[in-house]
Amino acid sequence: MAPEASPTPRGLLFVMTGASGVGKGTIRARLLERVPMFYSISWTTREQRPGEVDGVDYHFRTREQFEAELLTGAGFLEHAEFVGNRYGTPRAPVEAALARGEHALLEIEVEGAMQVAAAAPEAVLIFIMPPSLSELRRRLVGRATETPERIERRLARAREEILAAHRFRYVVVNDRVERAVADLEALIRAEELRSTRWPQSELEGVISN
Amino acid sequence: MAPEASPTPRGLLFVMTGASGVGKGTIRARLLERVPMFYSISWTTREQRPGEVDGVDYHFRTREQFEAELLTGAGFLEHAEFVGNRYGTPRAPVEAALARGEHALLEIEVEGAMQVAAAAPEAVLIFIMPPSLSELRRRLVGRATETPERIERRLARAREEILAAHRFRYVVVNDRVERAVADLEALIRAEELRSTRWPQSELEGVISN
Repeated sequence: MAPEASPTPRGLLFVMTGASGVGKGTIRARLLERVPMFYSISWTTREQRPGEVDGVDYHFRTREQFEAELLTGAGFLEHAEFVGNRYGTPRAPVEAALARGEHALLEIEVEGAMQVAAAAPEAVLIFIMPPSLSELRRRLVGRATETPERIERRLARAREEILAAHRFRYVVVNDRVERAVADLEALIRAEELRSTRWPQSELEGVISN
Repeated sequence: MAPEASPTPRGLLFVMTGASGVGKGTIRARLLERVPMFYSISWTTREQRPGEVDGVDYHFRTREQFEAELLTGAGFLEHAEFVGNRYGTPRAPVEAALARGEHALLEIEVEGAMQVAAAAPEAVLIFIMPPSLSELRRRLVGRATETPERIERRLARAREEILAAHRFRYVVVNDRVERAVADLEALIRAEELRSTRWPQSELEGVISN
């Protein structure tokens, strides 16, 4: 029999999550410079703010478009409603990237990450851990974008999420950004090295060459 | 309550295996230069050869000592008999290293690795894969230490092992040694990042600081 070409292995789905203020966005930007991956941009029905770019910050959609995707389209890996607006990670572009053999990266809130875990059990969940809760408080206060009450609510939620960190496969401490990015690179490589990524046809290729 | 000091997390047990000639020894030596770990030296009852150093190449033991360890000592993580001589990985020094929080590395044959997996299910099994079987043949022939028949038997065994690579957690191709060592470093770091390595007391430490 003629040997068949090895199929492209499916890409891996990485879900990075953690508290507001922990530095997910910075880590994600640096990581994407170093490891080329498909980065999923969320859909939202909220209004576009000055400076935001459609297709970069979000895909801005009408509520009708969002609901059509949910009901008759490929749907969302996770979605939620905040203050009357809908937000979601559309399933189709992620699925297309994985099928092409590209890895995909989501950077989302913890509740959304748990939805993705339910919808895609093979997803690799990564929790970004602050060095301490007081450091997280400092970062949130430093942003100066939120009221003290809202900061306290975020910290209370962060406390619960940290205590439940065992729900995620990996925990990466964001003490120094470069270190956290190197840790993410290591775990991405390790996931690529899992024996489950070798189709039997590729093992047969090794012995027939 | 006064906060308790975080317990030292147990070290991780890495088991590197693969066919004779695949380059395990070279990879192991380079890896140990870069990642400090406890390296387990086997016991053997065979005679010491010229140039071999007791406690470096092997721990040379009498058959009586070996059997006493097996029957009344801490025993072996794996052991086997070849050509009338016994070989084994003593359990006690590995266990002591892990308890001190050091990682331990074993470099052993595939059958031994499967014994370790049964004795220590948390062990991280790593299969070193040759780029191809013909390359493995070239390396074995190049060593010029074995008869053609013995080489063919080794290759037949390697073929079986490669086809069963899914028994191991990770598969690292030894095409370029530096690349293989970097892959091992990545997977060691990833194993350190697993959420299961965080004791609840340490998660509580993050939120109380």
